[in-house]
Amino acid sequence: MNGPIDLNSDLGEGFGVWRLGDDAALLELVSSANAACGFHAGDPPTMRFVAAGAAAAGVVVGAQVSYRDLAGFGRRRMDVAPDELTDDVLYQVGALDAFCRVAGDRVRYVKPHGALYNTTVDDEVQAAAVVRAVKEYDAALPVLGLPGSALLRQAEAAGLRGVAEGFVDRGYTPQGRLVPRGQPGALVTDEQAVVERAVRMVQTGTVRAVDGSELQLPVRSLCVHGDTPGAVALARRVRTALEAAGFPPTAFA
Amino acid sequence: MNGPIDLNSDLGEGFGVWRLGDDAALLELVSSANAACGFHAGDPPTMRFVAAGAAAAGVVVGAQVSYRDLAGFGRRRMDVAPDELTDDVLYQVGALDAFCRVAGDRVRYVKPHGALYNTTVDDEVQAAAVVRAVKEYDAALPVLGLPGSALLRQAEAAGLRGVAEGFVDRGYTPQGRLVPRGQPGALVTDEQAVVERAVRMVQTGTVRAVDGSELQLPVRSLCVHGDTPGAVALARRVRTALEAAGFPPTAFA
Amino acid sequence: MNGPIDLNSDLGEGFGVWRLGDDAALLELVSSANAACGFHAGDPPTMRFVAAGAAAAGVVVGAQVSYRDLAGFGRRRMDVAPDELTDDVLYQVGALDAFCRVAGDRVRYVKPHGALYNTTVDDEVQAAAVVRAVKEYDAALPVLGLPGSALLRQAEAAGLRGVAEGFVDRGYTPQGRLVPRGQPGALVTDEQAVVERAVRMVQTGTVRAVDGSELQLPVRSLCVHGDTPGAVALARRVRTALEAAGFPPTAFA
Amino acid sequence: MNGPIDLNSDLGEGFGVWRLGDDAALLELVSSANAACGFHAGDPPTMRFVAAGAAAAGVVVGAQVSYRDLAGFGRRRMDVAPDELTDDVLYQVGALDAFCRVAGDRVRYVKPHGALYNTTVDDEVQAAAVVRAVKEYDAALPVLGLPGSALLRQAEAAGLRGVAEGFVDRGYTPQGRLVPRGQPGALVTDEQAVVERAVRMVQTGTVRAVDGSELQLPVRSLCVHGDTPGAVALARRVRTALEAAGFPPTAFA
Repeated sequence: MNGPIDLNSDLGEGFGVWRLGDDAALLELVSSANAACGFHAGDPPTMRFVAAGAAAAGVVVGAQVSYRDLAGFGRRRMDVAPDELTDDVLYQVGALDAFCRVAGDRVRYVKPHGALYNTTVDDEVQAAAVVRAVKEYDAALPVLGLPGSALLRQAEAAGLRGVAEGFVDRGYTPQGRLVPRGQPGALVTDEQAVVERAVRMVQTGTVRAVDGSELQLPVRSLCVHGDTPGAVALARRVRTALEAAGFPPTAFA
Repeated sequence: MNGPIDLNSDLGEGFGVWRLGDDAALLELVSSANAACGFHAGDPPTMRFVAAGAAAAGVVVGAQVSYRDLAGFGRRRMDVAPDELTDDVLYQVGALDAFCRVAGDRVRYVKPHGALYNTTVDDEVQAAAVVRAVKEYDAALPVLGLPGSALLRQAEAAGLRGVAEGFVDRGYTPQGRLVPRGQPGALVTDEQAVVERAVRMVQTGTVRAVDGSELQLPVRSLCVHGDTPGAVALARRVRTALEAAGFPPTAFA
Repeated sequence: MNGPIDLNSDLGEGFGVWRLGDDAALLELVSSANAACGFHAGDPPTMRFVAAGAAAAGVVVGAQVSYRDLAGFGRRRMDVAPDELTDDVLYQVGALDAFCRVAGDRVRYVKPHGALYNTTVDDEVQAAAVVRAVKEYDAALPVLGLPGSALLRQAEAAGLRGVAEGFVDRGYTPQGRLVPRGQPGALVTDEQAVVERAVRMVQTGTVRAVDGSELQLPVRSLCVHGDTPGAVALARRVRTALEAAGFPPTAFA
Repeated sequence: MNGPIDLNSDLGEGFGVWRLGDDAALLELVSSANAACGFHAGDPPTMRFVAAGAAAAGVVVGAQVSYRDLAGFGRRRMDVAPDELTDDVLYQVGALDAFCRVAGDRVRYVKPHGALYNTTVDDEVQAAAVVRAVKEYDAALPVLGLPGSALLRQAEAAGLRGVAEGFVDRGYTPQGRLVPRGQPGALVTDEQAVVERAVRMVQTGTVRAVDGSELQLPVRSLCVHGDTPGAVALARRVRTALEAAGFPPTAFA
């Protein structure tokens, strides 16, 4: 594995007076920005800021769609009927697209957020509902998700492009799932280890799982978090290391 | 005055389990549907229903944008900063446009709802904020509003097309403003009078104000309400009378 | 079984301009009103209307607590962390209690709504979270729920009074669960059958399950729905039949 | 003027994952905590944290009630009908009271937030609507506001106790109004000046207005902000100075 690699992060995760993460700093580091669309975060002025800033920085914008759950930041699974979920996704993509168009670009991909991301790893029905929205809106938009997930499977079955991503600071099970938060090995906290994992994922398409086994993880994008203290500094280290290894972050969409 | 006339009504004014008005019936009567976009009403499944139904019926869809006020149905003036208001409008237009595009059409005009409609009759700052959003999104989209309003003035100053509408069941002051609800003459309740006013507006471009004076009211569209008992029947009578007078409802956008 | 029986129904299920059911009519029929508290329905003016109307009619008010899901009317299961669920319930009970106190009474019981009701039939963790809120607020408040549910089990384990209710127009499995909506036998649509089931539940403490078997269902309250066409008329028939059988509806709290 | 003085600050101004200010630090400094109640900020877990923390620290809790405007943080005037405003206030007070009661205390006063605070300085109708809610809920609860405001006037006319507060870091007009944000002199940014104003308000009941004139400002409470960088440190300096001057912060309710 030695193709180009994308660096993505969640942006626009504020609402009203509240902010999470440093969007301006992240826009200088990532090649793709997953922009919150108002259901878990992301009020309209924030969406404009992200869309305009991304366009100015040459960063590609994707719609980070979520359950309608502002109080829970989209982190709580909801049993939304598939038709309603499709419509909720469409609504969010369209709203973000308005700001992207005003900024001279467009929404270029879709990635589920939080509990919707986790649910669509295994839930074929919700995964298909998300994919249907993307296909209806623009079948040329890729879907970003976990390798081996129902989401990517449904995307490809629908004729969409599924793009696999790796998480540089999350532990993996031998089956390629993320170790759930709260369990041992869920987070990789050592910065040097994070950087090495990032480079390894790109150079070899593998990652060391929590049990020590080597896991095939062919990814086109790496996700770095931006909402924790030190996250921006870590993202900068990851970017620098990727560049040094000959893989300057390059958008997939 | 004898050009074509449009018949518009507010649709999609439900949310979740709740409904207001009979969207399916109205889609058979109007030529333009002002679709709620989620801020005062209009959840995503309802927006799909309106957009798809309108496309199937040959009805043009406009974005009925509002203050963010679900609890107040957008009927309470809010002192929103102009930049935020512009972004709020963009968000709503984009969200609705997703459903229109999926239905094979597009958002074709913008009309403010409720308190935002009333505020932008006289408030140049809020009117300009709404117009700026429309211009940014698509300068080809017309804005629908009250003749002589700040909204239409700002639209035209910005190079947009302002489209004037008349209300068939509302009383007018001699200055061409709507008589505020709660004051004598605010509502025209006699059905025959409503129908006659509608035909007169189209044939002569005038309406009788509450003081009996004749008011010039050159309008390209007539607004009928759909959310009260008997509203659909009244809209049907208005449509039939317009057709009989040689003015079958014809969209302006 | 021949003790007193309560008749409860969901009230205040509107929001803003929207209404569901006829609260004024139901207040003349039921002995207990499950009042929506703002999370799935129930804006403050509606809550005042229900609390004041109930006090005037001698109807007891309970807090019908829900997931925070206005768009889904609380009908979608959410994986809310137990501590957050406890706090969400407390918030709703306290808010409703303000209106009850102003009306000269108090919240007298708690009943989960929709998906939270269904989830707490079997989910001990969410059931315990609801019960903890009630106990913290006022350990004298009873909890209304399905016989044999985790909710009533947890309530009693916590030293609270659990009150069992039956549904007059819903089908039961031989295990005493409600037949899920959408499955055959979920709804009892014949009005005479509904009335007979109601009287039988009270007189014998049993109900005929969907497979024809007789099910023990000792209930202190019967739930009638008020949000469908004809619901008020059916509730009136049930009440009349209960009175004729010697069981005039009597609140349990 | 040499009576006891209270030190109040806004707490609980987060929502979901978002935080504003350092509630834990402020609870060690103030004698009264204005707790957000969910309409502009303040989700249930945050409300529990504030109520429980205040009770543990011996801090009195007041309900900081707001317009229903999460996206605008309650900083945008809304033309809410008085009856609805009364109900909105009641809802918030009741919800907060649940957490205070669980913490072993009660809501002890009410203070409007943001635009509602500013509006009720001069708007007698909205001021009366807020006061009516407090009176209905518990006529023993004082109302905290600006000296000379419609709010305190209406409170006293209704038989409630109005408590006057001063702002240590805000400029005053010669008429005793706050200089609007954005105008020269709106903010007192020099820390030493802030501390001196605080002590002077307490010792002499006066403050120097922006035009240099001396203004009578008899206050029972001083408001310090907690939501800006350095705010906690400034609050600590104010408290220390008050203690040194012989006025250890003492709650008014």
